[in-house]
Amino acid sequence: MIMGQNLIFTNDIMAAIGQINAQGGHNLMVWIADVNTSSFVPALERVITIPGGDGNKSLDTVTHVWGEMERMGVTRCSLVVNLGGGMVTDLGGFAAATFKRGVRFVNVPTTLLGAVDAAVGGKTGFNFHGLKNEIGAFAPASDVIISTCFFDTLPLQEMKSGFAEVLKHALLSDRDEFLRLLNHDFTAPINHDNLLERLRRSVQVKVDIVDRDPKEQGEREALNLGHTVGHAFESLAMKRDDTVPHGYAVAWGLVAETVLSHIKLGFPSGEVHRLGAFVRDNYRGFPFTCDDYDELLDLMRHDKKSRDGEITCTLLADIGDYRISQIVTGDEVTAALDILRDILGV
Amino acid sequence: MIMGQNLIFTNDIMAAIGQINAQGGHNLMVWIADVNTSSFVPALERVITIPGGDGNKSLDTVTHVWGEMERMGVTRCSLVVNLGGGMVTDLGGFAAATFKRGVRFVNVPTTLLGAVDAAVGGKTGFNFHGLKNEIGAFAPASDVIISTCFFDTLPLQEMKSGFAEVLKHALLSDRDEFLRLLNHDFTAPINHDNLLERLRRSVQVKVDIVDRDPKEQGEREALNLGHTVGHAFESLAMKRDDTVPHGYAVAWGLVAETVLSHIKLGFPSGEVHRLGAFVRDNYRGFPFTCDDYDELLDLMRHDKKSRDGEITCTLLADIGDYRISQIVTGDEVTAALDILRDILGV
Repeated sequence: MIMGQNLIFTNDIMAAIGQINAQGGHNLMVWIADVNTSSFVPALERVITIPGGDGNKSLDTVTHVWGEMERMGVTRCSLVVNLGGGMVTDLGGFAAATFKRGVRFVNVPTTLLGAVDAAVGGKTGFNFHGLKNEIGAFAPASDVIISTCFFDTLPLQEMKSGFAEVLKHALLSDRDEFLRLLNHDFTAPINHDNLLERLRRSVQVKVDIVDRDPKEQGEREALNLGHTVGHAFESLAMKRDDTVPHGYAVAWGLVAETVLSHIKLGFPSGEVHRLGAFVRDNYRGFPFTCDDYDELLDLMRHDKKSRDGEITCTLLADIGDYRISQIVTGDEVTAALDILRDILGV
Repeated sequence: MIMGQNLIFTNDIMAAIGQINAQGGHNLMVWIADVNTSSFVPALERVITIPGGDGNKSLDTVTHVWGEMERMGVTRCSLVVNLGGGMVTDLGGFAAATFKRGVRFVNVPTTLLGAVDAAVGGKTGFNFHGLKNEIGAFAPASDVIISTCFFDTLPLQEMKSGFAEVLKHALLSDRDEFLRLLNHDFTAPINHDNLLERLRRSVQVKVDIVDRDPKEQGEREALNLGHTVGHAFESLAMKRDDTVPHGYAVAWGLVAETVLSHIKLGFPSGEVHRLGAFVRDNYRGFPFTCDDYDELLDLMRHDKKSRDGEITCTLLADIGDYRISQIVTGDEVTAALDILRDILGV
């Protein structure tokens, strides 16, 4: 339970949705899916299909969804099912939360990243004037159905991207789980029972933190671990007209920020190197040199969560022992980037 | 206190805003006003001016406000002050509640209707595809500053329109207050102390009801008293390309629904006639005949709050003793409309 969210871990999605729909006595059920996930919607169901990709996470798409809800006769007694990755659950959640001042909605994440991050915790929204999630609401899905059944066909890169957030949750909470995750083999077929259990533990970490700070006024910042440096890599790539999967940038950010944690708080170097080896082996290194440091530092200083132009991170004294709002200097970040390049071999 | 809303009754608005702004340690204060109220914004303050009127309560206007907030550098640590009637507080509240997933906002209603209704209770939104308040959120202003200092220049029709909601609140709660209100003389100069006290009592009725049902799942429907029939008059006028002030339609609706209350629940006929005389003397009669009954009944059956095509009203067994979700038949409404025409002399 998170902000009143009911979390359901199952690989029988239709049974779960059927139960939610029947219990709520809804007058209508409407699905929202993107072009990639609409094929998963059962035949004869009503579906609003939206274009895929972050570039379509826009006011135009929200307006289209509102118009379709109206055309289909959605009322406050209806149920909306968001089926897709983070883009669909963020945007569909916002559209449902604001239609007639709020229609009940359920999230069914179809990506690993969505399952452990976007679909849970009540953040909804869309991009505006080129700014990510600039308009939105804290509006929890009534239920989140977390499943691994979409992952057999998920591209490897998407799996890895989501897995970085799973690693992050373990670093924030549990060394045994962290070590278990480092044994993960992306080339092996998915063991659904095992992966669903990993998701259960991972999501619980987010639930526990968000429940203590639903509107991001303090502790929720812990979930930013790896993201101060990670976002800088993402933005640098964007400036170069390149893209890097979010989770890859987070993975590199996690390594850099555990290095910073070692420098500032004595985080064990053995764990840094364990994590570093896993990231080096599984996440293609990002080509950057010391010539990029100034730009990266500048991007970190302008991060959404920075204050007064200082670089702030969530750091770890040990696995499970996090400290939010830690200020780091440019020299410290430079040292961490040197070590990161060394670890990744770039 | 309502949904965490702090209500401030004062005629020293700038002192109240100054205190709110200072206590919150905001990095920026931005006003939202329409073309009618922007002249009340003190010089040198930052203001986002929007066009006035319900026709501009649109996505275009919301988008304009979001863009201006961004241009001015509004962050989650800023303060937004909505200065205006219900259109400004509804739309400005929605824009603030969704910008960066929520910026603190204060409502300063400048109309009587806004003070006793729109500004309080957390409903925000805008019109979409011709449907009133179709998109919105339940998002309470942190503070509502209720004042009578704008009313000296408020057109008489606006005063009367708001006063109908004041009458409604008295009917829902307190016979002595109801009788006091019936002595009100709209032609006399405003007695600010007395009117502020009337507002205090009136708003408290709404606060008490909304606190028990913030998201309109039951009891809040009590506030719909007078509105089932009232909305039908508004819609009929609109179909005739005529307009009728909302409060006038509510005043007629209150008379019709107290008649229905008498028929169904034995509401005292003496009170019906007291109210009827006041409405006849102060609210220009709406020209309708028995030829309009079918259309009015049809509009009531399609009211947002009706179910299964039945006409439902909030009715009174006595002043202060309300019953929500009362089903009335077409014949009962017809009888009530006959008596209403008789009372209003139309």
